[in-house]
Amino acid sequence: MNSRRASPSVAGKSPAASPSPWRARRRDREVKREAVIRAAARAFNRKGYHNTSLDDIAAALEVTKPTVYYYVTNKEHLLFQCFLAGVEPIRAAFREVKDLELPARERLNAVLRHYGEAVASEFGWCMVRAEDQDLSPAMSRHIKALKSEVDQGIRRLIREGIQDGSIEACDPKMTAFALAGALNWIAHWYREDQLTGAEIAAAFVTIFEGGLRPRSASQVATRAPLRRRVRIAR
Amino acid sequence: MNSRRASPSVAGKSPAASPSPWRARRRDREVKREAVIRAAARAFNRKGYHNTSLDDIAAALEVTKPTVYYYVTNKEHLLFQCFLAGVEPIRAAFREVKDLELPARERLNAVLRHYGEAVASEFGWCMVRAEDQDLSPAMSRHIKALKSEVDQGIRRLIREGIQDGSIEACDPKMTAFALAGALNWIAHWYREDQLTGAEIAAAFVTIFEGGLRPRSASQVATRAPLRRRVRIAR
Repeated sequence: MNSRRASPSVAGKSPAASPSPWRARRRDREVKREAVIRAAARAFNRKGYHNTSLDDIAAALEVTKPTVYYYVTNKEHLLFQCFLAGVEPIRAAFREVKDLELPARERLNAVLRHYGEAVASEFGWCMVRAEDQDLSPAMSRHIKALKSEVDQGIRRLIREGIQDGSIEACDPKMTAFALAGALNWIAHWYREDQLTGAEIAAAFVTIFEGGLRPRSASQVATRAPLRRRVRIAR
Repeated sequence: MNSRRASPSVAGKSPAASPSPWRARRRDREVKREAVIRAAARAFNRKGYHNTSLDDIAAALEVTKPTVYYYVTNKEHLLFQCFLAGVEPIRAAFREVKDLELPARERLNAVLRHYGEAVASEFGWCMVRAEDQDLSPAMSRHIKALKSEVDQGIRRLIREGIQDGSIEACDPKMTAFALAGALNWIAHWYREDQLTGAEIAAAFVTIFEGGLRPRSASQVATRAPLRRRVRIAR
């Protein structure tokens, strides 16, 4: 496990030194369940959901397949648990900021930082790709509902921000799609040897907040005359 | 074919009235090749790459499989052609803005608008998902190279914008990832019955440009006192 990787939710409880909690001294059920989910997330991320068997996950944990079945019903359920492990810290962030005495933009930023960290975690692949895996209709609905809850939460904070003056007037739906899209895409390019998930999430929030167009008058004033800066079309 | 959908590259030449150009009067090779690519893009988008056979595509066009093989070497080649059909208008946009007498931010915005339209087109799925389809190493390299070209082009325009003062100082790599990520994600949620690709691309560019934090002094001045706007934590 890479210590630089921010692993929300189940991260703090993971036994970092031992690859398999069945070999560690602390043997409570929750730790083992989390180890199963974490091993599955890594395998799905590396090999894809359909190319991963419960045997692979059992082998990675040095246990038998029946042991894995003790913690999860089936592979689809396991994928859902990985999805949940990624999404739960974002839901928790919404709950945490709910009653904070802060303008909505700052509450939104806090949620977006958790969001970015989650997508850069080992659960990121499962978060953004779970729905593409030909899931059962019931599971698909369940995942859609959780995604919708997050989406609606972001839109609500944007609306609140427009209302309290901390966010520029905008289309909350389009803006939520743009923010979540940028964050979701982290799962496609993130490698652990670069920045941490927290660093990337912070950088993204800065970009979202400020926008590309310069703000400070001094910066604009120091610009060289336009004519000298642009190419001449032929 | 939905007329609201912006279909870059091959769009203008497509015979909108007839479902199959083999039944239309205009029978030149290029139109038929484009119809094959477009039918493939639709099928990949709807059923996924691995669940789509060349038989499906032939059936959609009301031709035989050997006819499809006349235009493309194999299914992987077909996916690549769909990828190219999506990416080519973005590459063209870079060429078009290259010598324009505009600040880099405006040149970047023009590219991003083409980018957003391309991802919202029927080639969007192939653009953002081609690389996940267990392609041959050679094809994978080819696609990666084209993606990298687009990424580097965006970073270059951001650097130019920082230099000419039209873009706020930022990390060009992170910013390019944020912008491209937001745009790529359009392929995951876009439905033709909503806004057009052009409308979404324009909305996204506005969000990227302005950022969430309000700019106008008047807007800030009209804000109600903070105490009245926030919830009290218990």
